[in-house]
Parts: sequence; structure tokens; C-alpha cells
Amino acid sequence: MFQFIDGGICAAKGFTASGIHCGIRKNHTKKDLSLILSEVPANAAAVYTTNLVKGAPLLVTKSHLADGRAQAILCNSGNANTCNANGIEIAEAMSTLLADELHLNPNDVVIASTGVIGQPLDIAPIKAGIPALIAALSPDGCTDAAEGIMTTDTVRKEVAVSFELGGKTCHIGGIAKGSGMIHPNMATMLVFLTTDAAVSPALLQKAISNDVANTFNMVSVDGDTSTNDMLVLLANGLAGNTEINTENEDYSIFMQALNTVTVALCRMIAGDGEGATKLLECKVSGAKDLATAKTVAKSVITSSLLKAAMFGADANWGRVLCAIGYSGADVDVSKIDVSFRSSAGEILVCQNGSGVPFSEELAKTILLEHDIEILVGLNSGEAASCAWGCDLTYDYVKINGDYRT
Amino acid sequence: MFQFIDGGICAAKGFTASGIHCGIRKNHTKKDLSLILSEVPANAAAVYTTNLVKGAPLLVTKSHLADGRAQAILCNSGNANTCNANGIEIAEAMSTLLADELHLNPNDVVIASTGVIGQPLDIAPIKAGIPALIAALSPDGCTDAAEGIMTTDTVRKEVAVSFELGGKTCHIGGIAKGSGMIHPNMATMLVFLTTDAAVSPALLQKAISNDVANTFNMVSVDGDTSTNDMLVLLANGLAGNTEINTENEDYSIFMQALNTVTVALCRMIAGDGEGATKLLECKVSGAKDLATAKTVAKSVITSSLLKAAMFGADANWGRVLCAIGYSGADVDVSKIDVSFRSSAGEILVCQNGSGVPFSEELAKTILLEHDIEILVGLNSGEAASCAWGCDLTYDYVKINGDYRT
Repeated sequence: MFQFIDGGICAAKGFTASGIHCGIRKNHTKKDLSLILSEVPANAAAVYTTNLVKGAPLLVTKSHLADGRAQAILCNSGNANTCNANGIEIAEAMSTLLADELHLNPNDVVIASTGVIGQPLDIAPIKAGIPALIAALSPDGCTDAAEGIMTTDTVRKEVAVSFELGGKTCHIGGIAKGSGMIHPNMATMLVFLTTDAAVSPALLQKAISNDVANTFNMVSVDGDTSTNDMLVLLANGLAGNTEINTENEDYSIFMQALNTVTVALCRMIAGDGEGATKLLECKVSGAKDLATAKTVAKSVITSSLLKAAMFGADANWGRVLCAIGYSGADVDVSKIDVSFRSSAGEILVCQNGSGVPFSEELAKTILLEHDIEILVGLNSGEAASCAWGCDLTYDYVKINGDYRT
Repeated sequence: MFQFIDGGICAAKGFTASGIHCGIRKNHTKKDLSLILSEVPANAAAVYTTNLVKGAPLLVTKSHLADGRAQAILCNSGNANTCNANGIEIAEAMSTLLADELHLNPNDVVIASTGVIGQPLDIAPIKAGIPALIAALSPDGCTDAAEGIMTTDTVRKEVAVSFELGGKTCHIGGIAKGSGMIHPNMATMLVFLTTDAAVSPALLQKAISNDVANTFNMVSVDGDTSTNDMLVLLANGLAGNTEINTENEDYSIFMQALNTVTVALCRMIAGDGEGATKLLECKVSGAKDLATAKTVAKSVITSSLLKAAMFGADANWGRVLCAIGYSGADVDVSKIDVSFRSSAGEILVCQNGSGVPFSEELAKTILLEHDIEILVGLNSGEAASCAWGCDLTYDYVKINGDYRT
């Protein structure tokens, strides 16, 4: 039904993108400024971090998106522009500089920043870089844009799918940056999505708000909810479909296409968590309700002890039970089953809340794979959920022991 | 007012203790069974983990302490006796075996276990070891008992103070085991306290419940609330003071002595967190109420990103602001001040929610010390709180990547 295609955020009609090194970062080989442009104004929707400490770019973007419209996304890496006395001023200046060059209304510019918190962001390199950034705009620019928003990410994150709405071929694409300070709460890390499907601003907001609750908000790398989390979706309508403005069948198809893109990005973000050597997926089934399933899945994926055990390929399932027990979810411990699964096989390690004999050798073989599923059966209902995370490794400590300097 | 003295849990009159290797652990040089005995029945109070997955020993102890009385504490390390189908049976057997040898009522025995979750606990080595454990009881036995409850602890944890109640010299002493799965919630890791002060069961319970809320519940090593957390206090009354059964001045003195002991143990547990190279204390002041102060202090001390920064002696205060922002506490971000302090000095890094220029050299010098204070001023009231934690290091990952095998 949905076909993965190349092109990322430029897969949708009418979108171009670029990414350059403008000088915010000292390392000249790292891009630090990205631009995404729709050739026509687009409907726009966003979700933001729930952290009380919010980056200045979020406040500016929220104000710009009040009318549900935007045409460009400008994002820098290397500096979060957060906890700076002049942060709002700088973020507004970024909007105005770009808008002037592109002859847009500054209100139609989305601004995002990611990087170190609390260091003044110099506007000079951004101002100097904008003409080159605009000159570099291209339908093949997704890769550059995806690289320009990376911080400690080791791989760029881009995805796109095509699907049909009323006989018209539509596309949704996205890029993301993840790695650290990843524990989204009603929002997400930086994710920029584009689509050429026509969707009203209200339905666009509903679509991403509903989707994020089951995708990005179920990802955790380190338990730290960032100050700069933001997801923005631009829908320029150039696919020519009838605009979606009710929860009809087209909306349902759009939601599924969107979910295909966001789940792919969730897996990329979790698997490339800071220092990660493994992608962990905790799949909870048999919960009495969705809230219980989500609470249990997220608690397991967030446990430092379990994450360290997975790094060591150690089938220490007691830590799964422990994390379920302190999650706050109301579960019957005596009914819990736990299995580990990977491409190397599946092994039951706990049944009805107690350990069962199992082959340590097989368990090790399963856990030495890169993609690990932790299967939790609560045997108390029909609800299910999935959370994504990664292992806790020496490199997480190394990366974060000296990030600023 | 309170004098630190030697003797730990044997400092109080009428208490003896012992610790031996009985064979639960494979390593013969590690003690794995400890005993604390009062020569007369004592009033007893306890708090337990809020984890829904509870170790069998906790359930048995809770039942034994229903009458507010106990005379002995038997604790093994190397196996948590949790998530085992026959856990209750084994914990009851431990009580009965000890009670039979000591001619006690099994109901007067407190049972505790710590170690790996979900592996059957063999009663045989415990049964075989109890006579030797009893034979080893001594007024100088605190050190052995403190060693017998250690898991990944690198140092044993014992403390005692003397104080006066109505002209009578009283003592409170304690031992603890900490290190991993340390994130107490309305309870604590394993802590055993003894006193010769006479305190009624009701006031004893009130004293520890109130104290724990501001001490052990403010400690976090890794965010994982253990299944086997327990704190038990035995008060045998042999000091000869008038029994405390109302919240009078003696109760106030007793509470202060108790707090002196528990804060000392909190610092020991946090400073010896798994892999820790530093003790972190987050001191929050100027909060509008105590709940806000506690929420902020605990969120900061729990942040993996901040913990890793402290390991690297990196004054990355943005992570302090971030952790305050996602804590859930209702704070005015624009009023927050942050400083770092140690024996090498104190440095202001953030004022009114924004960064201030500071000497990176001095900050590094301060953060290279072992004991680090993170001072957060909320400038919104008079309430204050403190939380204790440690840095996140390579060794935490190493210890937990392969704990079982």
C-alpha cells in the first residue's frame, strides 16, 4: 500500500532543500545550516517539547504557525539558542534574513536550532551563509539538509513513502536528528516532514498530534526530554488530491502513510541513540488498556539497568520485571510473560511472573544481534504498544562526558 | 549535639552482629549472609519499595512486623529471592531455621535478600551456615554484617552516633547496601538501623517514614526503583530513657539523631553508586514549596546527561536547566540561578535562566573534585531540598553489561 522511495523531504512535489557549513561549528567538514522550501505556501502543523525550558526558536515558530501556514524551514545545528538572553531576537532575525532573501513573509518561516544550550548564537555566520544556502536549494538537496541538522548523530535520517489518495499519487517524506537528550514528551526531537497531499491545517494538526503519541513519544535514548524538541509537517497540496478536511477514508490512508514514515524515523533515531550498538523494541501485548501498555513499554525501554544488560547481551529479564513494577502501571505481576526475540530466534525467559529454565547459549545468540525485541505479555486484556530505545554503552558516557568542549 | 562513634549497628546497647560466607555466592572471599540480633525483643518499624514486583522477603517481613516487634534481622546477598515461584516458602524457611536455633518466635525475624532477580534461592547453604553465623555474633560484628549485605558496593557502609535523651546516653547506628537499582520511592535500598533508645512502635514508624521522605527517597543512582528496597529500624530500649510515645522534645532530638545517621548513609550510597567517581549533591533553595524543591533536586540528580557531564568535569549547566524544565515542577525559568561548588571553590554559571560568562578553567578545577554540589536557586520562595546522586561512568556500563554471569 505504501512504497518506500528515495528523496526524503524532497520526494513530495514542490519541495527543495539544502544544507551547508556556514561557520557556527568550528569543524569545517560538518554542515550546520539547513533549509527546506515549498514552492507555494503550505498548511503547517507542529508539536513541541513539554519542557518548561523551551528554546527560543520554538517560541518564535509557535507564533509564526498560529495561522497554520508556512513555506520554509530554517534550522541550524551546533547551538540550541536556548537559555540565552537574546534568543528570541536572534531567532526572529534568522526568520527575517531568510524571508527578505526569498521575498516571503517572516511569519511563514519555521525556525529550529539544535546543539549546546546556553551559549549565545552569533547571527553573523548565518547571515553570511543564507545566500549560499538558498543558491544550493535543489530537489536532490534532502541529504544535505539531513546532514545540516545532525549533532551527535552518526548517520543521517531520511525516509519517504508514496501512496494514493483518490487516484492522485501523494508523498510524505521526513528527516530527523536524534542521538541525545531524547525522551520526547508530547513532542519529539527535531523532525521535519513534508507532503504534497492537501490536508487542512486542523486535520494536519490532529494527524501529527495523534501519531506522535504512539511514535516519537514512545522513543527514549536517555530519559532527558530536550528543550528544543519540535516536529513540523508542511503540506503544500501540489499532489492535486481533494483536500482532506474531515476524518474520511483519505484521512485514514494519510494517517497510515504518515505512521509508516514516523515509525521508520523512530527506529532510526533509537538505533542511532548516542553510543548505541543496538536497537531495542519493547512490544507489550495483553494490556487492559492502551495507557497501561504504553507506560509499561516506555518504562522497560528507559531502564538504565536493562539498557546496560542489552549492551552486554545478558538475558537479565529480572530487570524487565523490575522496570514494569516501578512503572506506575496497574498490572498483575503474576501474569507477566517475557521473551527476547531477534533474527536469531525467540526465547521465553519468564512466565507468570517467575523465571523458567532457558538456554543461556541461545539467549546470548539472540541478544548478540543488532535489532532486539523485548516481548512482554501482560495477559490481562487486548491492548498493545511498542516503545523504541537503545542500549547504554561506554560511548554514551564518552560522548556526554565532554560534549561542550 | 550528636557525636559520630564507631560500632555501627552494634553501637547501641544489646545489639550484636555477624556476617559469613555460607555458599550462596561462588566467590569464597565474599560474605553472603548477615545477622543482627538484639538481646531483648525490640520495637520495630520498616518502609518498603513501592515497586509492584516485590521480593518475597519483603512480603514475609511485612507480615512478621505487623505486631511492631522484632528481635533479629537475617539478610543474604547474591540472590534477591524475587520472581521465584517458591520465594515465600524459602523466606519463611529462613525465618524458621534461624528462630529455631535462637529459640525465638519466627515472627520476630526480619528477612531480607539482595542480588540477582529471578533465580531460585537454594536454602541448603543458608541452613548449613546458620549455626556458624550465630556462633560468630559479636559486639564487634558490625563490619562483618555490613560486608555480608554488599552486592556491587565497593565499600561497606556503616555509621553510628550517640546523643542524650533525658540524661541517658542513647545510640543510633546503621548499615546499608547500595550501588545499583537505586532510585528509592517511598522506601529505600537495604538499610538496617538499630537504637537502644526506647521509642513506641507508632512513633518509630512515624520517625522513619518522615525521615525517609527527605533522605533515602532523595537518592538516585540509576533511576531504577529496586524490587527489594527495605529499611528496618529496631529499638530495644536498653538505654533506659523514658519511652518516646508522643512528639515531644525527646522525639525531636531522636529525629535529628536519626537524620544524622540516614544522611551519612545517603552520602555513602550515592558516592558508591555503581561505577561512580563522584558524589553529587543537588541543593535547591528558594522554592515556593517543599514538593517543588524536591522534584527539582531529584530531577537534576537523575539526569543521565548531567551525570555524564559531571564524570567529564564539564560545567554543562544547560543540562541542569533542561532537567529542571522537564521535572514537572511549576517553576519560573527566568528566575533560576545555577552554581557549582566543591572544596576548590564556587562558580556562578547561570543567572535568571540565562548563561553568564565564567572561567572555564575555574569551573574545571571545581568539578575535578570528588564531592560536587549543584546549587539551584529558584528565587520564588523559602523552601529547600537536597538530593544525592553520582556521576555516570564507563564502569556503570561495565558492571551492568554483565552482572549475572
